[in-house]
Amino acid sequence: MTDQTTDIKQVLQTPNPNFGVIGGGSWATAIVKMLCENLHAVNWYMRNETAIEHILKEGHNPNYLSAVEFDTNQLKLTNQINKVVEQSDILIFVVPSAFLQNELDKITAPFSDKIVFSAIKGIVPESHLLVGEHFNERYQIPFEKIGVITGPCHAEEVALERLSYLTIACANENHANTVAHFLSSDYIKCNVSEDIIGTEYAAVLKNIYAIAAGIAHGLGYGDNFQSVLMSNAIKEMKRFIKKRYKMKRNINDSAYLGDLLVTGYSVFSRNRLFGNMIGKGYTVKSAQMEMSMIAEGYYATKSAFDISHKDGKKKVKTPIINAVYKVLYQTKNPKQVFTKLADKLS
Amino acid sequence: MTDQTTDIKQVLQTPNPNFGVIGGGSWATAIVKMLCENLHAVNWYMRNETAIEHILKEGHNPNYLSAVEFDTNQLKLTNQINKVVEQSDILIFVVPSAFLQNELDKITAPFSDKIVFSAIKGIVPESHLLVGEHFNERYQIPFEKIGVITGPCHAEEVALERLSYLTIACANENHANTVAHFLSSDYIKCNVSEDIIGTEYAAVLKNIYAIAAGIAHGLGYGDNFQSVLMSNAIKEMKRFIKKRYKMKRNINDSAYLGDLLVTGYSVFSRNRLFGNMIGKGYTVKSAQMEMSMIAEGYYATKSAFDISHKDGKKKVKTPIINAVYKVLYQTKNPKQVFTKLADKLS
Repeated sequence: MTDQTTDIKQVLQTPNPNFGVIGGGSWATAIVKMLCENLHAVNWYMRNETAIEHILKEGHNPNYLSAVEFDTNQLKLTNQINKVVEQSDILIFVVPSAFLQNELDKITAPFSDKIVFSAIKGIVPESHLLVGEHFNERYQIPFEKIGVITGPCHAEEVALERLSYLTIACANENHANTVAHFLSSDYIKCNVSEDIIGTEYAAVLKNIYAIAAGIAHGLGYGDNFQSVLMSNAIKEMKRFIKKRYKMKRNINDSAYLGDLLVTGYSVFSRNRLFGNMIGKGYTVKSAQMEMSMIAEGYYATKSAFDISHKDGKKKVKTPIINAVYKVLYQTKNPKQVFTKLADKLS
Repeated sequence: MTDQTTDIKQVLQTPNPNFGVIGGGSWATAIVKMLCENLHAVNWYMRNETAIEHILKEGHNPNYLSAVEFDTNQLKLTNQINKVVEQSDILIFVVPSAFLQNELDKITAPFSDKIVFSAIKGIVPESHLLVGEHFNERYQIPFEKIGVITGPCHAEEVALERLSYLTIACANENHANTVAHFLSSDYIKCNVSEDIIGTEYAAVLKNIYAIAAGIAHGLGYGDNFQSVLMSNAIKEMKRFIKKRYKMKRNINDSAYLGDLLVTGYSVFSRNRLFGNMIGKGYTVKSAQMEMSMIAEGYYATKSAFDISHKDGKKKVKTPIINAVYKVLYQTKNPKQVFTKLADKLS
């Protein structure tokens, strides 16, 4: 992992690219804020027309990170996704993975020549693929033009301009450096990585481990157990990712371990909250209804379980993923499952 | 790291050893509780005669973990350290490192033939040595008979019988297995390790990183930064320990990473609290007076800084230890020091 400043000269020789952000949630809002620190204008698509009107009139998103004040002269807002696709060189997708295909289906403008970055933390339900793989397989975008933006980063702290670190991963170092350059500011530092598969899997898996942390908390396990769970989770993540894509990586870099910690220790994480309700005795369905949404890690658990088990005898050991799968998809008793899991941890 | 059950047959062939615990604080109290799950009697030394009387009368320690109920028939309590030394085969030292030498100076009974385990997380101020090294150099106890008991483990959660994992490290696997066996119970699982130097350094260094986490929090850094700090801390710990004693170890095992996390994320950690006060503008002296005690990590910072800097040009990079040192010992401005530190993290 190298600092984005290493290649900054090369970056600055390229003309200012047009960025387009797809999504209207809190992480999308945070990314637009970061880009506005460096660009005269940002193309921004969201579905919700009322929100667009509110932003243009009041200068802030009414639904997410409403404390963030925008200079509306910098925002090219539209609810027409094709406008943003047409007018942008670099597209950043920031919608929940469950809604991605629905947005992609609307795109009729030429798309396969764009540079496409994903800030989505999930697996595409329709294809069971990572978002990057989905762009490649379904839209013939070469991996050279596909990138990933990962944390550890709560959007809420970007709103407060608290120092945060992002990792920008792309097989093409120039593209990674460009995106890193335009996201960086006084309060955002960017690392650059070539590990698009590993960083994306880390962002997906951490949500499963956050559900595990929530279940444990709901069952009454304490901080001692939580630290053991996280130590075992990062080792499991390392095995899982290594099996998917072997390359030299330090699993303790912030894109992997940091991202796990910021989610696994967050009392605000939706995934951890979901797990907590399960641990306290809610059924999956009642927890989902109570939360009026489905946590990303719910889908990720099934995908990760299927992926690791299709390897047959050569599959890697994933006791934590397996335990969460048993609780969420096989309605096994969380207490019994976690008692057995605890015997496998060290 | 292997589970202690692997060699359990060998353990059970040895007669029940006599255990002696040296110390009357919360971690000592927790260790006596663990031993009482498996032994008819435990030798227990503490200085405080009033506390001894209270325990024998009321069945609980008045000052620490007072919710823990003891069967007083199991406790051979005394404020004569030599009695405990004489009557024990295995001694477990659990006093703050700053008071260790004072207790050792009282020992006149034959001592060098004992098996000596340390549950102390600190460096001996008088010798600047790890506790294990101190026993070896100053008391001619061979390393074969020296061991370490580490967490991740808050004593308070042992009192609540919340599932916790310990790591028992000793060059002699039999001794490690024996101690692991007698500490294990429904709520305590023990790993066994040969890495006495590494686990002991981890227990010492984590307090420095907890101070760093506290300073950052006091300065207004948020959860995003904390996760990056912990990711960088575990990499720094790996480098530091590898330089001190090179062996095959997985730094993400719970004795290293887990111990770092349980302290670095604890709002109850004295070290983190101390750092927090420094970050909020207290001087070192006023923070220490306010806390009416000195956090272990304060001494550890100087020792670790000195150790890593005596290596000269071949010293390992320890930016976090250096930053804490500058703040605590060179009265540098925490805000400026951490702004520079942030540039070195990734």
